[in-house]
Amino acid sequence: MIAESFLFQILLLLVLAKALGKVFDLLSLPRVVGELLAGIILGPSLLNLITPREELEVLAVLGVVFFMMSAGLEIDLGRFIKYWRQGFVIAVMGVIVPFTLGYCIGIAYGLNFIQCFGLGTSLSITAIGLSVRVLMDLRMLRTRVGLAVINAAIDDDVIGLILMSVAFSLATEGSVAFHTMAFSVLSSALFIGSGFLVTKYVCTHLKVRLFVDKYFRSPTSQLVLAISLAFLFGLLARVASLHEIIGVFIAGMLLRGLLSWKVEGEIFDFTFAFFALLFFSYIGIKTDLRVITQISDLILAVIVAAFVGKILGGFLGAKISRFTNGEALIVGIAMNSRAAVELAIASAFYSLGIFTLELFSAVVLMAAVTSIVTPILLKLVAKYVTVT
Amino acid sequence: MIAESFLFQILLLLVLAKALGKVFDLLSLPRVVGELLAGIILGPSLLNLITPREELEVLAVLGVVFFMMSAGLEIDLGRFIKYWRQGFVIAVMGVIVPFTLGYCIGIAYGLNFIQCFGLGTSLSITAIGLSVRVLMDLRMLRTRVGLAVINAAIDDDVIGLILMSVAFSLATEGSVAFHTMAFSVLSSALFIGSGFLVTKYVCTHLKVRLFVDKYFRSPTSQLVLAISLAFLFGLLARVASLHEIIGVFIAGMLLRGLLSWKVEGEIFDFTFAFFALLFFSYIGIKTDLRVITQISDLILAVIVAAFVGKILGGFLGAKISRFTNGEALIVGIAMNSRAAVELAIASAFYSLGIFTLELFSAVVLMAAVTSIVTPILLKLVAKYVTVT
Repeated sequence: MIAESFLFQILLLLVLAKALGKVFDLLSLPRVVGELLAGIILGPSLLNLITPREELEVLAVLGVVFFMMSAGLEIDLGRFIKYWRQGFVIAVMGVIVPFTLGYCIGIAYGLNFIQCFGLGTSLSITAIGLSVRVLMDLRMLRTRVGLAVINAAIDDDVIGLILMSVAFSLATEGSVAFHTMAFSVLSSALFIGSGFLVTKYVCTHLKVRLFVDKYFRSPTSQLVLAISLAFLFGLLARVASLHEIIGVFIAGMLLRGLLSWKVEGEIFDFTFAFFALLFFSYIGIKTDLRVITQISDLILAVIVAAFVGKILGGFLGAKISRFTNGEALIVGIAMNSRAAVELAIASAFYSLGIFTLELFSAVVLMAAVTSIVTPILLKLVAKYVTVT
Repeated sequence: MIAESFLFQILLLLVLAKALGKVFDLLSLPRVVGELLAGIILGPSLLNLITPREELEVLAVLGVVFFMMSAGLEIDLGRFIKYWRQGFVIAVMGVIVPFTLGYCIGIAYGLNFIQCFGLGTSLSITAIGLSVRVLMDLRMLRTRVGLAVINAAIDDDVIGLILMSVAFSLATEGSVAFHTMAFSVLSSALFIGSGFLVTKYVCTHLKVRLFVDKYFRSPTSQLVLAISLAFLFGLLARVASLHEIIGVFIAGMLLRGLLSWKVEGEIFDFTFAFFALLFFSYIGIKTDLRVITQISDLILAVIVAAFVGKILGGFLGAKISRFTNGEALIVGIAMNSRAAVELAIASAFYSLGIFTLELFSAVVLMAAVTSIVTPILLKLVAKYVTVT
């Protein structure tokens, strides 16, 4: 039986995340920062009332499924795909620059090759959920900049997948299993490609919509259809060795062509009243700042490199793709959040004995700082930039 | 990280529960039976694709929170309380008769006192979630009969609490800890009483509603309020040693006075598209029919006693409360489902060595049969009875 303490934890998370989100909103700051802070406050970093565990992880997964489905529902695939080239360039530049900076810091501090590679990787992978959320909070999701950033974040996830698999192969076997890696990349590309094709077919063929209107008439039936498709796409993304977050996002774009306006609204309301609160505050719970006992040069260098690397990389990518200076800056900042993936790499490398406690702390603090500062920075900069 | 297999399990549960529910609906049978069967088919009893575990339990708890909140939202406290006397009589009779029958079967089969007491208890506690759902499926929730049954099911939960605590004290210590028991009963009564008072205050004072309209204007804010109150009341019920199900139900009645029509609709849609599917199918998952290797006289006797005892007891209670014969029969049948509590008692007694495998199997099969047959029986009988 689920303990009382667990019901209490969910209640605490919901109430504090909503309350701090509201406070941040009143201060004209992005809500998501309040939600992250709720998790940091309730989690191991401060009050230690809630610690990461499988039961909460389940809720966070539900959270991400509904959140990314909502994001997808806002986006038209046709318009989205137009920005794939820009997205790709931004993603590549947005990985190369921070990776190189991370690697160089490693060399400067006398780390070995695997440590340098791990550090570079830890700086390079954008937290797609946070990027999307920040764009949503600032109502930029459907702008050119927003669409390019989401394209970039998806490509970034695939690049991240390659880097991570290289890093783990190096760490555990000392060599790189190219066939496994190639297989992952191919399956990812296959999944994304066929997901787009199916979505395009569904959204452009009226008969699919008529079929749904006929056989899934009630809001309840449409919701079951939506939730099942979201889980199915999330699952397929996982099988293709991507994160479920990307599958669910594609499912959302597909559902945009199928659901009634009313059901879309219900999904948004429930997502932001429940699921997203759990997902974003759980990121805060997982960020255990207790590991940071002192702020060394190395830690500061890592944080600076994270900001400079990702923002500069994204900026350069966007400039190559002919965005204005202001827009390119927005792109760079929007790509700057890091979270779950970095924490996963850093924990794994720490437990394998490859990362020292100092390196591990550096990555944890970098993830926390980028997650919290990025939305605020983006909001500040967005005041002075016209985004189209 | 949550495994792919888990995403797959949720997807399977949702799709099969929805599909079988639909099939049963097309066959003019209650949907909930299809949902229970989905769990039995996917669970250990048949395919063994999904087994009970904490992560699923979390989803089932979310399920019950949303389901019982929805039920409460349909019910007006003022009208509900009018039937407390009838409910009380029905609950008492609906426990005395099956308990006595169970006890007597125990004696007839030469069982000892504690075994007899345990068996009696296992026959006596109505599964409130299933009762409410069946009444909902048959659109009887707001009839006199429906309101009396829910009143009875709540009292039954309190009586069940007493019986269970006696049974466990006898089983583990050989004597009854009256002060603990008295404390549980008092705290339950206190919780239910004050829950009703708060609800009545909220529903009759316009200023509370105006406050909510002013400060929780958006649907999202109202949803957060609703979900938080539901968790809070569920938690308080647990602290008062009741099931969360009762707290959440009271929260639903309270929220009826606060939420906009639109938000109520959203809660219903989401509940029946997602949360209720998980809750009811999980009851099927937890019912492991593999324990039943043969059907003995004793097992048959227990099942017959369960049906006769609860239906007759409920019938007598309703007759005392001046319902018509037809209505009284409906009341008796509506009280006839057993599920989680019985499974919990039987498992605990089996693992303590008090129940033999045969007794354990008897209770498991009884729970499965009553859960599946009761809704169907009720629907059949309801055709011939006018319920007001």
